[in-house]
Amino acid sequence: MTLGELARRLECPVEGDSGIEIHRVAKIETAGPGDLTFLANPKYAAALASTKASAVIAGADVEGAPCAVIRSASPYLTFARAAQALSPERPPEPGVHPLAWVSAEAVVDPTASIGPFAAIGAGVRIGARTIVHPHVAIGADSVIGADCLIHANVSIRERCTLGARVIVQNGAVIGSDGYGFAQRPDGSHEKIPQTAPVVIEDDVEIGANTTIDRPAVGETRIKAGTKIDNLVQIAHGVVLGRHVLLAAQVGIAGSTVIGDHVTFGGQVGVGGHLTIGDRVKAVGQSGITNSVAADGFVSGYPAIPNHEWRRSSAVFRKLPEMRRQLRDLTARLQKIEETDK
Amino acid sequence: MTLGELARRLECPVEGDSGIEIHRVAKIETAGPGDLTFLANPKYAAALASTKASAVIAGADVEGAPCAVIRSASPYLTFARAAQALSPERPPEPGVHPLAWVSAEAVVDPTASIGPFAAIGAGVRIGARTIVHPHVAIGADSVIGADCLIHANVSIRERCTLGARVIVQNGAVIGSDGYGFAQRPDGSHEKIPQTAPVVIEDDVEIGANTTIDRPAVGETRIKAGTKIDNLVQIAHGVVLGRHVLLAAQVGIAGSTVIGDHVTFGGQVGVGGHLTIGDRVKAVGQSGITNSVAADGFVSGYPAIPNHEWRRSSAVFRKLPEMRRQLRDLTARLQKIEETDK
Amino acid sequence: MTLGELARRLECPVEGDSGIEIHRVAKIETAGPGDLTFLANPKYAAALASTKASAVIAGADVEGAPCAVIRSASPYLTFARAAQALSPERPPEPGVHPLAWVSAEAVVDPTASIGPFAAIGAGVRIGARTIVHPHVAIGADSVIGADCLIHANVSIRERCTLGARVIVQNGAVIGSDGYGFAQRPDGSHEKIPQTAPVVIEDDVEIGANTTIDRPAVGETRIKAGTKIDNLVQIAHGVVLGRHVLLAAQVGIAGSTVIGDHVTFGGQVGVGGHLTIGDRVKAVGQSGITNSVAADGFVSGYPAIPNHEWRRSSAVFRKLPEMRRQLRDLTARLQKIEETDK
Repeated sequence: MTLGELARRLECPVEGDSGIEIHRVAKIETAGPGDLTFLANPKYAAALASTKASAVIAGADVEGAPCAVIRSASPYLTFARAAQALSPERPPEPGVHPLAWVSAEAVVDPTASIGPFAAIGAGVRIGARTIVHPHVAIGADSVIGADCLIHANVSIRERCTLGARVIVQNGAVIGSDGYGFAQRPDGSHEKIPQTAPVVIEDDVEIGANTTIDRPAVGETRIKAGTKIDNLVQIAHGVVLGRHVLLAAQVGIAGSTVIGDHVTFGGQVGVGGHLTIGDRVKAVGQSGITNSVAADGFVSGYPAIPNHEWRRSSAVFRKLPEMRRQLRDLTARLQKIEETDK
Repeated sequence: MTLGELARRLECPVEGDSGIEIHRVAKIETAGPGDLTFLANPKYAAALASTKASAVIAGADVEGAPCAVIRSASPYLTFARAAQALSPERPPEPGVHPLAWVSAEAVVDPTASIGPFAAIGAGVRIGARTIVHPHVAIGADSVIGADCLIHANVSIRERCTLGARVIVQNGAVIGSDGYGFAQRPDGSHEKIPQTAPVVIEDDVEIGANTTIDRPAVGETRIKAGTKIDNLVQIAHGVVLGRHVLLAAQVGIAGSTVIGDHVTFGGQVGVGGHLTIGDRVKAVGQSGITNSVAADGFVSGYPAIPNHEWRRSSAVFRKLPEMRRQLRDLTARLQKIEETDK
Repeated sequence: MTLGELARRLECPVEGDSGIEIHRVAKIETAGPGDLTFLANPKYAAALASTKASAVIAGADVEGAPCAVIRSASPYLTFARAAQALSPERPPEPGVHPLAWVSAEAVVDPTASIGPFAAIGAGVRIGARTIVHPHVAIGADSVIGADCLIHANVSIRERCTLGARVIVQNGAVIGSDGYGFAQRPDGSHEKIPQTAPVVIEDDVEIGANTTIDRPAVGETRIKAGTKIDNLVQIAHGVVLGRHVLLAAQVGIAGSTVIGDHVTFGGQVGVGGHLTIGDRVKAVGQSGITNSVAADGFVSGYPAIPNHEWRRSSAVFRKLPEMRRQLRDLTARLQKIEETDK
């Protein structure tokens, strides 16, 4: 694709030779001829002068590029769209692979693609242009919307619903039984059947080997536009709001309700039956044990407001010194008290 | 099912119209006609008056239900049993699906059900009424007991044993190689073959994408009635006692021995070669670096007794203030010392 | 195998009857006749006198063994090699199982073994003696070296490269899409296609259900000899050095570069865009938020030098006492100040 053609698609102006061919996107430090790079983070500004890229996506105020420039008010967003335009993915052929197993009672749109060894249960419906890769198991009566991409080795259990344009990375599990047991008098446990559905709304992405449990009653719901990274645990009855970002290895305990535009760093843990307001942020490894009001920014375990936690953490390193000071003060004070007697 | 019929099965008395039809269990706030709900947590008592459920399971002292009542001394346990009775699950047909691969040297009980694309190795034995879902791989010489439920995409490696009524959620791995390497003089590592078995006793449940490693010597053992949530790591040579509860994302390092009725919150980490006594509890995200005696209740990292940790954590937020106080005291004391000279 | 034959293979001298038969390796406490055990950790020295093993691997200075002895300067390393020699694993037959699906455009070495229901995409190359177990999905144009072992239910996505002798435990995912999104002005997110490869060098081992993401640009690389435990998250663009050891449930955020011989305990989290020097160690559950210079040893969250963290952690338990002391000192000082007036 020529740079000019790409820029037209991106609806951005070009400075320089718009006739050059662009083959792929690349990092600013390692890009070469035919590569398009971008400058979104000022940390990398110094690398611009020496980039070997054929073109760079940059903001209006960026100067000194040794190559063609695509000007954008949002260079990172424009880069995302450029990468999509240059993406080498070719969708597999539509149709059901002869080595797939599709129940006679399932309905697969003729434009969908079902890979070898996929297992599609009775009553399942699969929407237009959706791609189901090998070894995906879809349980009875689940409904998968249009334009979804379900990677290999994913399990989607019975009676779950996925909206349109949902992407599920490899090995993820949707609809596994929630962890629900009632204790018997002898200390053993009775299983509470977890039969209610998981609902995944449009434009959600679910990371590799992430697990999303179904509840006994009600539903587990992931609202539109939310993006979940790898190895995340979403327990039964959780509701995740719209456009939530959960980094890898986050765990959300049962029945917790998370607002819209919430952002959690990696390995954050959230207790059960809590309410997390819209736009709350938590840094990686935080342990949230209480509900957090909208716009909160928390850290630590138990999680407290980030600015408090930062101050206390800084003092944590001084604890041995503080202890010595306390001892010293006590001794000096005692001396004065004895003198004063 | 009528409420009367259900109550007879639960061996509980009914108050109200026992002829009404009950279709499913539901949450007290969202239940409607035909739904059975329950009141086990006093937090939800206020919701009772306005529930639209047709019936509620409640303790002897609960009053004011606007619907029929099933009386129970253990409402949550009775709810579990009611949910089982109302559960919509129909087991798949017995027999081996024509698209499964079963070694000629495997023995599958005729009442067991083996799904499409299951792969059952040589020497495997599968017990009565056990259900093996699609894409389950069972390695050579493993033995699966009766009435087990093995969900899609589970891996059970060679020479492992599962007792009766074991449930394995999707994507779980039983018998992967333990993490065992001996360092060579040049800093590289020699693999120690991990060939000893994993033994899972009766009535264990294993969560989605949980991993249970096999050791080089001895065995890894999960004792009867233990329930493990999703994404949990059980390292090689670990022994989990009876009726242990491990919440999601817990990790237990190698050769650690965990007693009976132990309960760990989510994301707890336990070091290797430790002994955790019966009935020990640890709150979520605790990091247990030393053995804990029976009945201990620990928190924090390194984990300490919970009541100590709670007190210290409360003071943690005051650290900046304490540091200011220390500076202030030092200055005031110095002034006195100078005056006294 | 006789003890003498085994010792010759291990290139170690024997003391005692070298004609006895050795069948397997075992723990020092539970070994019996026909078993070979080892003594590498002085903690187990007391168990030597009462072991029922037929032979023990021990250092030159170990005395009092009630059985034959294989002398070794590195007993644990010799044990690893003995366990390999005694390992009961028999490789599956070479060839492609009739129930596998291999693209006509893939090239599988005739000595490789492809199990039932493996799915091998177009352009894939698989090296000599490599074993691919059931339900493994290998995406288009990926290259797997010689002597690899890919366990059941593993996903290897398109255009990834594995070197020689790579072992991938069950359920691991190599090449899932990195977590990369650009925010649109309305707060929703545009996916940045993650199309660059993951490269796994020779002699790497990857644990069960571990996930290794592909980046948008550049590559994710795991260098030779590195061993990764279960449920580990390696984000897009990460570079892991040679002979790195990552315990279970570690998470490394995007674009971080980890040096050679680095060792992380379980559940460690590392932020993105950091540089971790050679031979850095971090204890379990550490949260590394800044780059660490070579040979650093860190703990805590935020991670600080281990010796500092240990001292501060010890004082943490004294915080309530310190707060009382502060109050007491303040009161006493006030009294003196009032008296002095």
